[in-house]
Amino acid sequence: MKPLFGQVTIVGLGLIGGSIGMAARRRGLARKVVGLSRGEATIRRARIRGAIDWGTTDPVRAARDADLVVLATPVDMLTPQALRLARVMRPGGLLTDTGSTKAAVVEALDRCLPHRIAFVGAHPVAGSEQRGLDAAQADLFDGSLCVMTPTARTDRRALAAVARFWTRLGMRVVTMSPARHDRLLAGGSHLPHLIAYALAGSVSPGLPRPPQSFTDVTRIARSEPDLWDDIFLSNRQPLLAALVAFTRELERLGRAVAKGDRTSLRRRLTRAKARRDALEA
Amino acid sequence: MKPLFGQVTIVGLGLIGGSIGMAARRRGLARKVVGLSRGEATIRRARIRGAIDWGTTDPVRAARDADLVVLATPVDMLTPQALRLARVMRPGGLLTDTGSTKAAVVEALDRCLPHRIAFVGAHPVAGSEQRGLDAAQADLFDGSLCVMTPTARTDRRALAAVARFWTRLGMRVVTMSPARHDRLLAGGSHLPHLIAYALAGSVSPGLPRPPQSFTDVTRIARSEPDLWDDIFLSNRQPLLAALVAFTRELERLGRAVAKGDRTSLRRRLTRAKARRDALEA
Repeated sequence: MKPLFGQVTIVGLGLIGGSIGMAARRRGLARKVVGLSRGEATIRRARIRGAIDWGTTDPVRAARDADLVVLATPVDMLTPQALRLARVMRPGGLLTDTGSTKAAVVEALDRCLPHRIAFVGAHPVAGSEQRGLDAAQADLFDGSLCVMTPTARTDRRALAAVARFWTRLGMRVVTMSPARHDRLLAGGSHLPHLIAYALAGSVSPGLPRPPQSFTDVTRIARSEPDLWDDIFLSNRQPLLAALVAFTRELERLGRAVAKGDRTSLRRRLTRAKARRDALEA
Repeated sequence: MKPLFGQVTIVGLGLIGGSIGMAARRRGLARKVVGLSRGEATIRRARIRGAIDWGTTDPVRAARDADLVVLATPVDMLTPQALRLARVMRPGGLLTDTGSTKAAVVEALDRCLPHRIAFVGAHPVAGSEQRGLDAAQADLFDGSLCVMTPTARTDRRALAAVARFWTRLGMRVVTMSPARHDRLLAGGSHLPHLIAYALAGSVSPGLPRPPQSFTDVTRIARSEPDLWDDIFLSNRQPLLAALVAFTRELERLGRAVAKGDRTSLRRRLTRAKARRDALEA
């Protein structure tokens, strides 16, 4: 297939940015994949790993000829970076991101970006507890979901072009509002992370080999704290709402255990299992 | 190696009992592996799968010639079954179990079993959210931990013989008191299960594909409710104590999110990650 873009610039060459570059190059989505990073060493490693054609630490050189800029940095850097790069991007340039929370960034960019730059918020729902370019893989996104969060302000042609990019990267694209995205991800991803951190931080299995159940539930507590405090704080209200629902159910289970109420316990466990089983279908 | 026992009888031919039979036969631990089950169909399938040499629904026929009886039934059936089988076992016969909680069963059997039967409590810490003979595998226990819980009443030769059985089955055997076992498993296994059920029961990811973090954390909520209400209720106090510690930490994290206290959040996430990372070493 012919390339979708002349130049795609990836900002941030970590697990996500590096994997996007590897996949984009392997699938021929751009004639040129450029990387922007603060670290010269990262740029060298990204070239060696095949994640970029060339890279620079200079935002102007990275962005001025880009047809599409993909922001793949931590959530709290997305808005300032987008605003800075938009100043040097050429008119009609496309901008998308990979942030795990959407409402705050999309709202800020809808308000502040110049009209000649078309921004389309996106969240490729993939990744792992690992971090950094060394963990990047060309197939990280294969078969994963990409949530795009257009608004009334989003240019429809830009939306279609960016959707093609994520689709050709191997993902299934769905669109929804930023608020809905944040609510669903609060329960589906951010709360599980908070829970895993709470369990790893409060309980020691204390056996020569921890049970599989403990290591499975807490695996994501190995994720990087400086990425996750951002995500938690940038999605505060939806996360706290999901936390309340979870805590209420956990309290009900705890009360049933304390009272020896097998009937209530069995009913709740059965309902939870049915809901979880349904996800496998 | 020569067989450790003439006849080993396995009571209950589910995931655990079936896997023990398959491993014991493959490793030649007994001249004969006998299965006791309530279902004729289960016995037939167990023979076909190579989990037993022969089986019966008759407790007397199953137990009277056994050198070792291994109880692999749900926790609340262990004590009544042990007492019933002990009446027909021959003097000097060994009895062990596979229960996920130990204090109640060990205490009851220490008090009630006839002295001619030597009981040694055990918990092979393996399994999965799957259930039943069809999920049984000969290598289920390879490299897993087996916790044995002898008491002052436990015969030392019986302890050594049963330990050899679990070791030759491929497990690493450690011994500790029943109370310590129950406390460690409350945090390391039972609480993770309770949390998984609470999350699966309270939050719907609501996306076409649920995030990996959600499916990982809730995978064990697919475990069978009628096994797990037993385990929770038979380990009530240790489980509730672990639940309190977890809830307190989760509340602290929730407060830090609500207040936007990044310093406290970062510190707690970093501490949790360090503890979790240490388990990989």
